[in-house]
Amino acid sequence: MSRKKIIENKLKTAGVQTGDKIRVETKNIRREGVLMPHHDFSSDDIVTIKLDNGYNIGIKVDEDTRISLLEKHRKIVKKSRSIPFDKNKPTISFVGTGGTIACYVDYRTGAVFPATSAEELAFSVPEVFDICNVKTQVAFQMFSEDITVHHWQRLAEIVAKELNSGSKGVVIPHGTDTLGYTSAALSFMLKNLTGPVVLVGAQRSSDRPSSDAALNLLSAAVVASKSDIGEVVVVMHEGISDTSIAIHRGTKVRKFHTSRRDAFKSVNTNLLGVVENGEIKIYDKEYNKKKEGKVVVDSKMETDVGMIYTYPGLKPKDIPDKKGVVLIGTGLGHVPERVIPRLKELTEKGTVFAMTSQCIFGRINMNVYSKGRDLLKIGVIPCEDMLPETAYVKLMWALAHGKNLEEVKKLMLTNFAGEITSRTRSDVYL
Amino acid sequence: MSRKKIIENKLKTAGVQTGDKIRVETKNIRREGVLMPHHDFSSDDIVTIKLDNGYNIGIKVDEDTRISLLEKHRKIVKKSRSIPFDKNKPTISFVGTGGTIACYVDYRTGAVFPATSAEELAFSVPEVFDICNVKTQVAFQMFSEDITVHHWQRLAEIVAKELNSGSKGVVIPHGTDTLGYTSAALSFMLKNLTGPVVLVGAQRSSDRPSSDAALNLLSAAVVASKSDIGEVVVVMHEGISDTSIAIHRGTKVRKFHTSRRDAFKSVNTNLLGVVENGEIKIYDKEYNKKKEGKVVVDSKMETDVGMIYTYPGLKPKDIPDKKGVVLIGTGLGHVPERVIPRLKELTEKGTVFAMTSQCIFGRINMNVYSKGRDLLKIGVIPCEDMLPETAYVKLMWALAHGKNLEEVKKLMLTNFAGEITSRTRSDVYL
Repeated sequence: MSRKKIIENKLKTAGVQTGDKIRVETKNIRREGVLMPHHDFSSDDIVTIKLDNGYNIGIKVDEDTRISLLEKHRKIVKKSRSIPFDKNKPTISFVGTGGTIACYVDYRTGAVFPATSAEELAFSVPEVFDICNVKTQVAFQMFSEDITVHHWQRLAEIVAKELNSGSKGVVIPHGTDTLGYTSAALSFMLKNLTGPVVLVGAQRSSDRPSSDAALNLLSAAVVASKSDIGEVVVVMHEGISDTSIAIHRGTKVRKFHTSRRDAFKSVNTNLLGVVENGEIKIYDKEYNKKKEGKVVVDSKMETDVGMIYTYPGLKPKDIPDKKGVVLIGTGLGHVPERVIPRLKELTEKGTVFAMTSQCIFGRINMNVYSKGRDLLKIGVIPCEDMLPETAYVKLMWALAHGKNLEEVKKLMLTNFAGEITSRTRSDVYL
Repeated sequence: MSRKKIIENKLKTAGVQTGDKIRVETKNIRREGVLMPHHDFSSDDIVTIKLDNGYNIGIKVDEDTRISLLEKHRKIVKKSRSIPFDKNKPTISFVGTGGTIACYVDYRTGAVFPATSAEELAFSVPEVFDICNVKTQVAFQMFSEDITVHHWQRLAEIVAKELNSGSKGVVIPHGTDTLGYTSAALSFMLKNLTGPVVLVGAQRSSDRPSSDAALNLLSAAVVASKSDIGEVVVVMHEGISDTSIAIHRGTKVRKFHTSRRDAFKSVNTNLLGVVENGEIKIYDKEYNKKKEGKVVVDSKMETDVGMIYTYPGLKPKDIPDKKGVVLIGTGLGHVPERVIPRLKELTEKGTVFAMTSQCIFGRINMNVYSKGRDLLKIGVIPCEDMLPETAYVKLMWALAHGKNLEEVKKLMLTNFAGEITSRTRSDVYL
């Protein structure tokens, strides 16, 4: 009998449905709790129950495991809750945007829903209230792949308003798919930051035993309320264990895995620091400290910008006619020779091209080969050691702030938010 | 005085030009050799000389270093050389294609030129002749970013011919920029391999003290002549030291750094093995062993295939009307919702879409969220844990071999050359 079938049979025999309180007994353990829906990611031989203390655990079921019904489905009554306030604690702001971190599961249907309020999100990790007061609001509720420049602009306004009205820091729970784009965008849009702006996500929703939602959120609150960082940062699991939560620079971070909790990695730079046991450890002493005065928003962006990944069959007509295009070329910054005339033609018509690399790690250097020098001559901007995603966001910003190719180029090659490191380091690689 | 200036002054005072035989004396060492051109990648305070034994070394110059002229430029007379043959050694084939590995430097001008023959290349690492006989030919001489499907087809024909006429294995020196695309293409095009097909590159040309060209080439020859592998593999430095050279699966390898010698990494799988001190160590016992009989070429490819990297501003019109498109989506395989109707419309007109992830590591899973399920319903093919580059090459191949979407889908989701692993491993990640 398949492992899935074993569980199904045992549940059926016991008359148990999702949401019922049950007891699970194996050779080694005996646990009671509410049966949670089976998650696609869990192994077929695992049942997940929510214990009275609120934690979910997964238990491996085999033929000898006993499952019994204790109590039919208990309605989860929403208590009217108000967020506690302690005047001796710092106050931070939670700004909800959607994503896995903001999802909860309807125990009867198994469907995943976004939390309907940022309060719900805060209450999902009540430990947050031990360290700070939390003001909450929802900016929007989206799958992060649908977030656009307009959402970044709205977020920038909200963050500035929160910091300028007294919050020590801002936590932005966000879907992980485009979290790196948003963190780069906010890095360029927000000037004179008076506190940390902390983007945080979860790779596994809170109904799963291996969820990283709670610890990431708690660590984000620690960074927002206790650190003196004046940058946009991303806070996510550093490794697969719960021992260390990484603090990444907002312009240097990228999602590298579809499902692991340690999906996010800093590229071409070290971590800014980590959170371990609720304490912040700074690795990179050269971070920007928070400023005095007021946060300024400078969120003008050119929206007609694209990204083109080059490949062996790329044809001239595959290069679009936009105001700006980030090329994700090969190696040190190469494209097939056959598309160079098209780049020249479009540049003369006003398109700005910026070169990054499919390699992701390392630095663009178009001086090594003659074809690279041809591209430089046309006006293609070599984006140093910038991530393609960061270069895309920055080109939108630079095109809205520079009057011509020379000015845009100067902006692109100036380091504004840690996006360009001056020297390639040999200790930061895979 | 700048470090560069110090060297320039010392060379000028001694009347020394590139190509002259000189002596360099520091506090610790004294070396004689031919002055090599300064390379963009070397530090400004390094002079590089070619010793009599053929090796290049870099020497740090400070104000106390003495440089003296021994002999003005010696013309490098090309001796007519013939490749040795030893009937007790296995014979392999070298097939030149260009790239950094095939470059040599004109000592007078400093310009980098491709070796004009595969013989020259073989003689650049004479140690090769200690382990095998070498048949050489040049397929083409290209910067690898200009290599297209037609070059892959030509290479497949040559490889088959060489193996079918008695060579034990084939070594293909190749530019690193698109080496992973070519190795994937040959993996799908060559059936019933009777010996190893080894692609090899260099990140640093042989005029540089830190060149990886010789050791990579020698290791490639070891794999081609001594192993019983019946797959297309890529042989490159495993780490930054010279101790271990990695053997990667041809469909699972990717260039991750613009300049490091250990730029190539296997994704979602372990190394097939390594070469250490000239000995092959196999890590993955489940590789395909070489077959009996004849190699068969099946190189029909559809050329009208593209790759689209998704980003927050992607618009429906950015999705091109081609026979096939590999989407490099976000996370588990997502695209902005606004382009989904365009994907549906093009699919109905006959375009086949295949989904991969910008994350690079991990596996596509479009069943988790409703939008993913919508994409599956349209017919978008979830490319499991395939690299985007490998999926691109495979889609070209599948479109030339399947009659309709269902057949193409079946081909895409069948593992032919190690491109799909059945289970995600937790030990193979950054």
